[in-house]
Amino acid sequence: MSDALTPAPRLHLNVNILHSGFIPSAWRLPDADPQAFIDVQHYVRVAQIAEAAKLDAVFLADNASIVEQIDFRPITALEPTVLLACVAAATSRIGLIATASTSYNEPYNIARRFATLDHVSGGRAGWNVVTTADPGSARNFGLEGTPDHGQRYARAGEFTEVVKALWDSWEDDAVIGDKQAGRFIDPGKVQPIAHRGPHFKVQGPLNLPRTPQGYPVLVQAGGSGDGRDLAARHAEAVFSASQSLDESQAYRQDLHARAAAYGRGPQAIKVLPGLATIIGATEAEALRRRDQLIDMIPWSYSLNRLAGTLGIAPDRLRLDDRLPEDIALPAGGNGNHTFFKATLALAKRHGHSVRELIRALSGGGGHRVIVGTPEQVADDIERWFRAGAADGFNLMPDALPDGLQAFTEGVVPILQQRGLFRREYEGTTLREHLGLARPAGRHSAQARAIAA
Amino acid sequence: MSDALTPAPRLHLNVNILHSGFIPSAWRLPDADPQAFIDVQHYVRVAQIAEAAKLDAVFLADNASIVEQIDFRPITALEPTVLLACVAAATSRIGLIATASTSYNEPYNIARRFATLDHVSGGRAGWNVVTTADPGSARNFGLEGTPDHGQRYARAGEFTEVVKALWDSWEDDAVIGDKQAGRFIDPGKVQPIAHRGPHFKVQGPLNLPRTPQGYPVLVQAGGSGDGRDLAARHAEAVFSASQSLDESQAYRQDLHARAAAYGRGPQAIKVLPGLATIIGATEAEALRRRDQLIDMIPWSYSLNRLAGTLGIAPDRLRLDDRLPEDIALPAGGNGNHTFFKATLALAKRHGHSVRELIRALSGGGGHRVIVGTPEQVADDIERWFRAGAADGFNLMPDALPDGLQAFTEGVVPILQQRGLFRREYEGTTLREHLGLARPAGRHSAQARAIAA
Repeated sequence: MSDALTPAPRLHLNVNILHSGFIPSAWRLPDADPQAFIDVQHYVRVAQIAEAAKLDAVFLADNASIVEQIDFRPITALEPTVLLACVAAATSRIGLIATASTSYNEPYNIARRFATLDHVSGGRAGWNVVTTADPGSARNFGLEGTPDHGQRYARAGEFTEVVKALWDSWEDDAVIGDKQAGRFIDPGKVQPIAHRGPHFKVQGPLNLPRTPQGYPVLVQAGGSGDGRDLAARHAEAVFSASQSLDESQAYRQDLHARAAAYGRGPQAIKVLPGLATIIGATEAEALRRRDQLIDMIPWSYSLNRLAGTLGIAPDRLRLDDRLPEDIALPAGGNGNHTFFKATLALAKRHGHSVRELIRALSGGGGHRVIVGTPEQVADDIERWFRAGAADGFNLMPDALPDGLQAFTEGVVPILQQRGLFRREYEGTTLREHLGLARPAGRHSAQARAIAA
Repeated sequence: MSDALTPAPRLHLNVNILHSGFIPSAWRLPDADPQAFIDVQHYVRVAQIAEAAKLDAVFLADNASIVEQIDFRPITALEPTVLLACVAAATSRIGLIATASTSYNEPYNIARRFATLDHVSGGRAGWNVVTTADPGSARNFGLEGTPDHGQRYARAGEFTEVVKALWDSWEDDAVIGDKQAGRFIDPGKVQPIAHRGPHFKVQGPLNLPRTPQGYPVLVQAGGSGDGRDLAARHAEAVFSASQSLDESQAYRQDLHARAAAYGRGPQAIKVLPGLATIIGATEAEALRRRDQLIDMIPWSYSLNRLAGTLGIAPDRLRLDDRLPEDIALPAGGNGNHTFFKATLALAKRHGHSVRELIRALSGGGGHRVIVGTPEQVADDIERWFRAGAADGFNLMPDALPDGLQAFTEGVVPILQQRGLFRREYEGTTLREHLGLARPAGRHSAQARAIAA
């Protein structure tokens, strides 16, 4: 029921469809289908649950190689834009955010594919802009090693500028379709971009009219200085990783300050930290579920994964000892800065042993995990939101679809009662859900008037 | 109704969804929606009509720049793999063939996206392998000019080999999903491809399990020597262009001979010439429809297009004269060989003036056009099929969806009565529709046994 007296809800919730769920052992639960990771109906089902609860968007990660230990767990397999096109056909309102790498694609192709997703979904597409650091991906694209962190981000920045220019290469009203006069498109409203930069030469225009949202929502996840700068320039939603409220507050403030330097106000960027949830009717039940899931993950797997995040050899980790003292960001700067910092901060704050740290991470890769009742989860979300530590969250349920169902049935109604979350969609596009302005288009009469 | 006594039908019919239809003026018909070219529901509707008539597949062309005269007609706009994923969600049997260029993509990305389309559609994907020759596309991907014909085909051949190897990098039974033992994938059944060639270095494996069809159906459209050779090595269906039965017979025989040299039998390649149709209840009505459509195309547009096909300046064409005598394939070999040859042959055979030639092509780009009653169209199809000039056709209705509806309601029942075309789908995959074997997989026990 919509309540006209409730103040406009501003909290945003996406769900990250990590195949069987956030916890690597989720596929081993009694109700789980091990084939879910390659079953389009699994993704459709999760998206429909999310849409019924009025969530803002579903989110799909991506890789360009096998980065997981396949003997123990599912992998990121289906290509996200094709998969989300199927999800678009089976839903009507929920946003659709797909990850695509700037390291191993061409901007023309990415501009075209995401614009297509925006057209076919009626304005629900988002692009999560990433760079790809793993050496396995480099070897799938003709390189012997990964370009270093600065190079990757320089390419990503120019890549994003080219994509935005291509999205703007058609004015909104370029398609005339005048049957009597035989005029189909006004060529004066379709302009080349003539981009000449250090990484790309792209003439344009795009071979596709401007999209329902003007262009897809730009999402980013940078934790490093380069990453934050890319986010400040271009991102409209940021999928961040913070283990504590203080860290997340500081991150959000830093991002707002950086964005201001590019003339962008705080409303232009939504900060959505990752939040893994393990929910039970009682706290004890939630903890039992956590332990059941953790006990199904081999310790060798978790040790390898933690060592990977920290950029050290697995044999330097002892389950009952604390982390080695001398851990530093891997040389060349090619680690995942966000997860590295968040993991180290968590271990230091609690004085965790390696075993306790892995348990606190629930076998995960650096995102915050909360274990508790729907009330406890809602309290935590409200606390972060009211403290200005987050504009919302990128949810990572322990297992899918049931972990999401526990959230939408248990937590969402509480957030709605507290006036924090919508009861109905107010708009039809992802931009409208997120409260983001529709870009005017750099060639439009409006944009020309503003510039004049 | 299925009839057990009817011999297994072998004729194959795809429909090429050229936005509003084959004829450039189709968008100006009274019932046409000028926005159809960017409306996913238009493509879904056409595919559903095709599926109801038990056609083999829908086919989508693609470009990497604007190659059309946008002031007069719609363009190829929506990216085909994303668009066909939506069509997959709204259909259950019909095949889904998308074009993607080997000139401006990376094999790892193409292998992944088409394998995803095969997974989400339950085994209905096909990849139309093309090279891209237009200078506008080159300028969208950092090049000043187009690589020459031979270079493009050398890249295309290696590209296709890499894609096939990636599709074969997982054995069919690599995913175990044993919850008790905690074994998810058998890493011994997922192999790198370690490809090192002149154009590509790709380590593999693909980050996606083997698909329902083994791999998507490989489609090709080569008319040049290089193109025919690529088709002979890899193609399972060929979208050819022939203006006469003799040409098509000769083309099909040549392709079978070339394929035999690679150890491939004639059953392994289906030759499907393009066939544009303009259908009326009487021949006079069909001709009136043709003239109505032609009269809505500006002559300047048709002259430009014909000049482009022939690689000459438009001012060398006079409407009431024959073609200039000295026309030769454009230097560098970057014309469309298929359309060039077909157009020249048509003009010579009939002694057409330029005006007559444009009328015979219905403003089209080199494909054969047939104007007549359903009976006449069915007779023509049967004649070509029985003469061994075609295994079926890639249909290009004059306007969509109504031109397809005229075909499925008028022509298909006649072909079914004559025992030439299926009344029900016998299988669920595109390979099954086309009568193509499922590839065994180069690492499978079966393949190893054959090799031993």
